[in-house]
Amino acid sequence: MTLKLAFHTWPYASNPTWLPAYTLEETIKRIKRAGYEGIEIGAASPHVFPPTLSAQRRKDIRQLLEDEDLKLAAMLPAHGGGPGNNVASPIPEERQWSIDHYKDMVKLTADWGGKRLVCLPGWFIFGTTQRQAWEWARYAIAEIARFAQDHGVEIVIEPTPEDSNIVNTCEDCMNMLEDVGEPNVRLMFDTHHVITMNEVMSDYVYRMGKNLVHLHISDDHRLPPGQGRGDFKALVDALRDTDFDGYLSMECGFHRRGIEPDYVARTCMEYMKPLVDAANAR
Amino acid sequence: MTLKLAFHTWPYASNPTWLPAYTLEETIKRIKRAGYEGIEIGAASPHVFPPTLSAQRRKDIRQLLEDEDLKLAAMLPAHGGGPGNNVASPIPEERQWSIDHYKDMVKLTADWGGKRLVCLPGWFIFGTTQRQAWEWARYAIAEIARFAQDHGVEIVIEPTPEDSNIVNTCEDCMNMLEDVGEPNVRLMFDTHHVITMNEVMSDYVYRMGKNLVHLHISDDHRLPPGQGRGDFKALVDALRDTDFDGYLSMECGFHRRGIEPDYVARTCMEYMKPLVDAANAR
Amino acid sequence: MTLKLAFHTWPYASNPTWLPAYTLEETIKRIKRAGYEGIEIGAASPHVFPPTLSAQRRKDIRQLLEDEDLKLAAMLPAHGGGPGNNVASPIPEERQWSIDHYKDMVKLTADWGGKRLVCLPGWFIFGTTQRQAWEWARYAIAEIARFAQDHGVEIVIEPTPEDSNIVNTCEDCMNMLEDVGEPNVRLMFDTHHVITMNEVMSDYVYRMGKNLVHLHISDDHRLPPGQGRGDFKALVDALRDTDFDGYLSMECGFHRRGIEPDYVARTCMEYMKPLVDAANAR
Amino acid sequence: MTLKLAFHTWPYASNPTWLPAYTLEETIKRIKRAGYEGIEIGAASPHVFPPTLSAQRRKDIRQLLEDEDLKLAAMLPAHGGGPGNNVASPIPEERQWSIDHYKDMVKLTADWGGKRLVCLPGWFIFGTTQRQAWEWARYAIAEIARFAQDHGVEIVIEPTPEDSNIVNTCEDCMNMLEDVGEPNVRLMFDTHHVITMNEVMSDYVYRMGKNLVHLHISDDHRLPPGQGRGDFKALVDALRDTDFDGYLSMECGFHRRGIEPDYVARTCMEYMKPLVDAANAR
Repeated sequence: MTLKLAFHTWPYASNPTWLPAYTLEETIKRIKRAGYEGIEIGAASPHVFPPTLSAQRRKDIRQLLEDEDLKLAAMLPAHGGGPGNNVASPIPEERQWSIDHYKDMVKLTADWGGKRLVCLPGWFIFGTTQRQAWEWARYAIAEIARFAQDHGVEIVIEPTPEDSNIVNTCEDCMNMLEDVGEPNVRLMFDTHHVITMNEVMSDYVYRMGKNLVHLHISDDHRLPPGQGRGDFKALVDALRDTDFDGYLSMECGFHRRGIEPDYVARTCMEYMKPLVDAANAR
Repeated sequence: MTLKLAFHTWPYASNPTWLPAYTLEETIKRIKRAGYEGIEIGAASPHVFPPTLSAQRRKDIRQLLEDEDLKLAAMLPAHGGGPGNNVASPIPEERQWSIDHYKDMVKLTADWGGKRLVCLPGWFIFGTTQRQAWEWARYAIAEIARFAQDHGVEIVIEPTPEDSNIVNTCEDCMNMLEDVGEPNVRLMFDTHHVITMNEVMSDYVYRMGKNLVHLHISDDHRLPPGQGRGDFKALVDALRDTDFDGYLSMECGFHRRGIEPDYVARTCMEYMKPLVDAANAR
Repeated sequence: MTLKLAFHTWPYASNPTWLPAYTLEETIKRIKRAGYEGIEIGAASPHVFPPTLSAQRRKDIRQLLEDEDLKLAAMLPAHGGGPGNNVASPIPEERQWSIDHYKDMVKLTADWGGKRLVCLPGWFIFGTTQRQAWEWARYAIAEIARFAQDHGVEIVIEPTPEDSNIVNTCEDCMNMLEDVGEPNVRLMFDTHHVITMNEVMSDYVYRMGKNLVHLHISDDHRLPPGQGRGDFKALVDALRDTDFDGYLSMECGFHRRGIEPDYVARTCMEYMKPLVDAANAR
Repeated sequence: MTLKLAFHTWPYASNPTWLPAYTLEETIKRIKRAGYEGIEIGAASPHVFPPTLSAQRRKDIRQLLEDEDLKLAAMLPAHGGGPGNNVASPIPEERQWSIDHYKDMVKLTADWGGKRLVCLPGWFIFGTTQRQAWEWARYAIAEIARFAQDHGVEIVIEPTPEDSNIVNTCEDCMNMLEDVGEPNVRLMFDTHHVITMNEVMSDYVYRMGKNLVHLHISDDHRLPPGQGRGDFKALVDALRDTDFDGYLSMECGFHRRGIEPDYVARTCMEYMKPLVDAANAR
């Protein structure tokens, strides 16, 4: 078992706030400098959006990751905005666009040396039933997962109850995993959502068990861990109990303009590293 | 001179929060029922994103707007998220994507009986100079404006200082208008940004003068007008003084989940209609 | 269509806080005096708990309701505490206890001239799967509903996302209704939960449609309507649109000691009566 | 004299919030793992409610307590909710139900190797006098205490001024003890109530003296000790001065959903153990 620390690029990107923003190249260097082993890249401009990523830049980024010895912990597509990227949209053309986009992301993940692509099962809107939307999401995830098998990539479902309404809980994840039925589908959760929903983080760890392969770390209100009410000591204890082997990816501090990304990267490292080191030493 | 009231679709769309969300068809009916003459359509899923808009739905929406006798006050592309849609991006492929997307929007605006497309001049990120970004934005807007001339569409520049950093003020707008130098480029402003930046709304009206053809109406913190500290009485007086002839488009109540869109539509109407009726009667 | 106002007994009972508390007899008189047409009785001590309700008192309460001309809008069993009363408990004896208790409540509802019994589908605890718990809940509700058919009572499912975790949303209700498949199962919702979960009240009204037969009215934080951020005007409009015919039962002001029940009863009436009268007059 | 640490099950039960909840079996293991010598079991679902406790599970729990070498520090019935369990209720049937329930609890306490049952003297409601209620409570406690003598169990009265209104203070406890007049009636107090009522914890210790045999430990607002304004150092000093010999049972962190029980168990231990070890070493 090894717990590793990664940092998510959102605070350095144009998503969801447009500023502050840094090039992906600059972001990679800063995350490395802050002491992380891994990076999780959110697929949003100006970092990366497949339709506007040139072949040359694709190669350059890969090279830079190697030069800096920073591992691609995971990739995460952007959702909402113009395209929606909602696999459960009532608009068939949007569902197809989303599947195609996820397939592009699978290829990019593999190209950049990663093996995990985070997947959000979308949201259903007024006039659609949840059961219909669940089926659309299930179909899309199965299709994406089968495509990903040829690229050695795992599709990692994340519940996002604060934002969406189809896969909201640990149990929803387990059920979607079962319904999709493909071997390369795995699970993750975001501590921010769990805390916000008044659930218990360690419950998720024990229930997801071996299917848990990735984590988004954030305290409530997208604060860095240790600045809110989350119990990250209990989380790490539970991860150790269940032999979790993967990245704790810091995803916080990006929800409003006026937060310095380097501050977030440094603060998360200062709080989480002692917890993780102690767990790894046992 | 006539002041007309329109309602912006954001509170009924998946942007920027994913929920609540309604189909564009449902949204058109609700905005009409709330008593508005016009609708401003934000181009985001599930309402409209050109790459996933079928030819049939394109026709159906046009027909519905006619049946409901609801005028297309303006269209507004979405920014940020995956594509960025930043005409001042340091990534050449993203700048081109944005120009192409704006051209698609020009055609759609004309198809649906509108004549105004709101345009955001983008933002510059760490590592780019503002002057370089200004030139990229100017180039893009000129290119889009020339394309729009063949479709009878005006390109209406909006300053968004809270979110971006190139065209922030009334003066920036006047300068960009001058630098672009195309006859179908006009101006607008969003009262939310003006109030938030501690500027005076009527100053914008008098300074923009005949170039002012559209307005986004919102109190501070995206509250409906009348619920914050904005002086909308003074705004309407200034509009009357300058013979403004256009839409006051309500763009508020969409910044967080947990706001009922119908509440926003109704509340804005209740507050603004008496002000506008009084001005029109003079 | 008629919208009627009822008041829920919780603020006058020992549940969930023990004080203040009034006898059910006193409570009936006070609710009548505050101007309500109906009463919703929570089945908790000292108001009513079937195992400690004597035959004489059962008759006396019925007589008092008739004398005061106060209609039994609905009955609601208590949950949690010693017995749990969780139809989805992993303990078989508790599930059976809950079914038996609900059956007692069915008889009591009919005895006191009511026709609606609110039903909470329970919660699943650590170590139980949601799918298993859903099946236990479904089984129990079906059993209770069949029993209720002989007594002319409807079983009305309420989603309680803030407290429980099986039936959380409008869609969960629709799905449980479908899965139970008994004709006397209907639906309701509590505006407090909907507001707290950042959902839209009118969405629930339109989606539940003819299956919506009852409502719990409360603003956020269990405040009386009009004191929080709920849009009760939009709610009443939607109820009128869908020809709702039933009680709006005020369920608020009971979440902490130190609230005067009469204040809650009076304040709710003052705020809701004009809205309801206007809707009924149309 | 020995001060021992126990942990109360409320944070792991469905009472008073329904979630999070764990089986009693799981709870026993977690409390043991957190380092406690004793457990105080709250008698609420899904942990234990005598009418739904099977003979087999009764045996299994006893065995598990032995296997884990975790002592039953005390048992505490649940109050409020459906049954009320109010020994001072104006409803005779409820008073009898409560006495019977307490007798069931006496037997269960003995079965599981305990010797102390916490007893709450109830609350009087509008329309009842405090003197009448005091007499009903005294009668019930005497009846329960005589029954308990045959089972080697002590009845330990707890004042709960924040919630109830009959036995509110140290002096009320001393008076009830005197009025009941049975030798196996003893006293305890809950630091949360004492702090909340702006009283002094050590005053209770000195005044109760040899009658003090148990403690509920919580800072104000049900925070773990050390996180609020309570002076637990002074409390432990007073306990040492008076040769207190019993359990300090942590009863905190259960008043709202969204608290991780393991966090509470761990935090209480980290804060109290050094204090207790120092006192025991003197």
